[in-house]
Amino acid sequence: MNYFIKEEQIRFRHTDFAGIVFYPRFLEMLNDLVEDWFDEALERPFSKIHETNGIPTVDLKVQFKNAARIGEVLTKKLWVKELKNSSVICGFHFINQDDKMVLEGEVTLVNVVISEDRKSIKSEAFNEETAKRITNYKL
Amino acid sequence: MNYFIKEEQIRFRHTDFAGIVFYPRFLEMLNDLVEDWFDEALERPFSKIHETNGIPTVDLKVQFKNAARIGEVLTKKLWVKELKNSSVICGFHFINQDDKMVLEGEVTLVNVVISEDRKSIKSEAFNEETAKRITNYKL
Amino acid sequence: MNYFIKEEQIRFRHTDFAGIVFYPRFLEMLNDLVEDWFDEALERPFSKIHETNGIPTVDLKVQFKNAARIGEVLTKKLWVKELKNSSVICGFHFINQDDKMVLEGEVTLVNVVISEDRKSIKSEAFNEETAKRITNYKL
Amino acid sequence: MNYFIKEEQIRFRHTDFAGIVFYPRFLEMLNDLVEDWFDEALERPFSKIHETNGIPTVDLKVQFKNAARIGEVLTKKLWVKELKNSSVICGFHFINQDDKMVLEGEVTLVNVVISEDRKSIKSEAFNEETAKRITNYKL
Repeated sequence: MNYFIKEEQIRFRHTDFAGIVFYPRFLEMLNDLVEDWFDEALERPFSKIHETNGIPTVDLKVQFKNAARIGEVLTKKLWVKELKNSSVICGFHFINQDDKMVLEGEVTLVNVVISEDRKSIKSEAFNEETAKRITNYKL
Repeated sequence: MNYFIKEEQIRFRHTDFAGIVFYPRFLEMLNDLVEDWFDEALERPFSKIHETNGIPTVDLKVQFKNAARIGEVLTKKLWVKELKNSSVICGFHFINQDDKMVLEGEVTLVNVVISEDRKSIKSEAFNEETAKRITNYKL
Repeated sequence: MNYFIKEEQIRFRHTDFAGIVFYPRFLEMLNDLVEDWFDEALERPFSKIHETNGIPTVDLKVQFKNAARIGEVLTKKLWVKELKNSSVICGFHFINQDDKMVLEGEVTLVNVVISEDRKSIKSEAFNEETAKRITNYKL
Repeated sequence: MNYFIKEEQIRFRHTDFAGIVFYPRFLEMLNDLVEDWFDEALERPFSKIHETNGIPTVDLKVQFKNAARIGEVLTKKLWVKELKNSSVICGFHFINQDDKMVLEGEVTLVNVVISEDRKSIKSEAFNEETAKRITNYKL
């Protein structure tokens, strides 16, 4: 069992009038984490996937615990809670340099096929190889 | 009891490579809905609030049910599930023109005071007037 | 000759740590203006265009004259400076409620065809109908 | 004389319906480049600056030459064209892995002081140390 771990620095573009990260920007950071996991750990880079497939998010639960400010470097952790046939439930944590939890949550991703005219989207089982790689991150 | 209701059109800037709304953009739309609710229904416009106060999101649960595409007009609904001393739990729905649920969820907002140097953030009870207006949206 | 005119309210999501609009957000507002122009005035809604075509921006010049703050309503104006075979140079102004210029500039848009596999992009002449509608906005 | 150089990978969040980077996202990448330059080369990290000062963009000229797609790594270069008392004109290039120019342009940044109530913004001369560091990047 492993965590998938990446760091990300808080940027001016993430912050809002209150001087802290605007929460939809945290979800862009989460999307980057998922993208890196597919690319680096699952060997399914989004640059290839998105010609015919996609990994939409269908369920998201987040608790925002502490504010994050420009210049801080967050450690983003992701792990697998449950692997189903065509979907995976991942847990995640963003932790700051003082070891405080910035946010924690759970996200459900679905493996889908996109029709050639890009008008219909259908779930599809993960292939065996990908499923095996995913289970390496099962906590 | 009332729903607070706004419409929003899906824009090019909301969509991603898969031709559908990138989900962090939905949360920007949700933030706009909360902003409009504070401005139009609670008489606490964000332009005034953010000099000394804020309404951070501390908890978010969303289920993404159907994709949304450029040009579609979504009806965004918000209501109150529970009003506490310094926080409020709101339910929300985004529905498309075919009356399909695009997403539904629950968001917890906290009323806070921001210190003058903007370095500390502290929760504070809603004032009586605001609390009363909030309860108009209790389902 | 006409201006194409839309209003847009400054939102929390547009602002940054300095309490004013983060400038890439102004360009999202400009993109919305172009999108509305194509939809409402040129009868080429982006929802149709983007199945096979696109209107990429190839040149942009902006002067940011005054800051814009949350709650302000900007008047966005667009007009045509020059129509070429497959491209159009538009001027634009964003003006605030005190009639101050927030920004002004010039943007060049190109009419393109996107190949079915979406890997190649080629410029194409505007059709006659669209060209005629565009010239209505020539200053 | 030096270029200030950083790399950035194109992410899913940068792309639009046409499968290429949505141009306001390029300007977020440019803002990151300026932010890194101030932090790493000029020793004026935005996390410190923005308590009392800012570096707003007042003029921007960009030519978008080639599309950029998810997974590509761009090399972002910045240099100084002209240093004035309280402003600096920088040139910039974004180049892809095939050595093709993705975009090039010129941005004018102004050094400003923000009043304590954050309601007024005034230009101010760069201090000597910062001016000296800036000239290291003069082409």
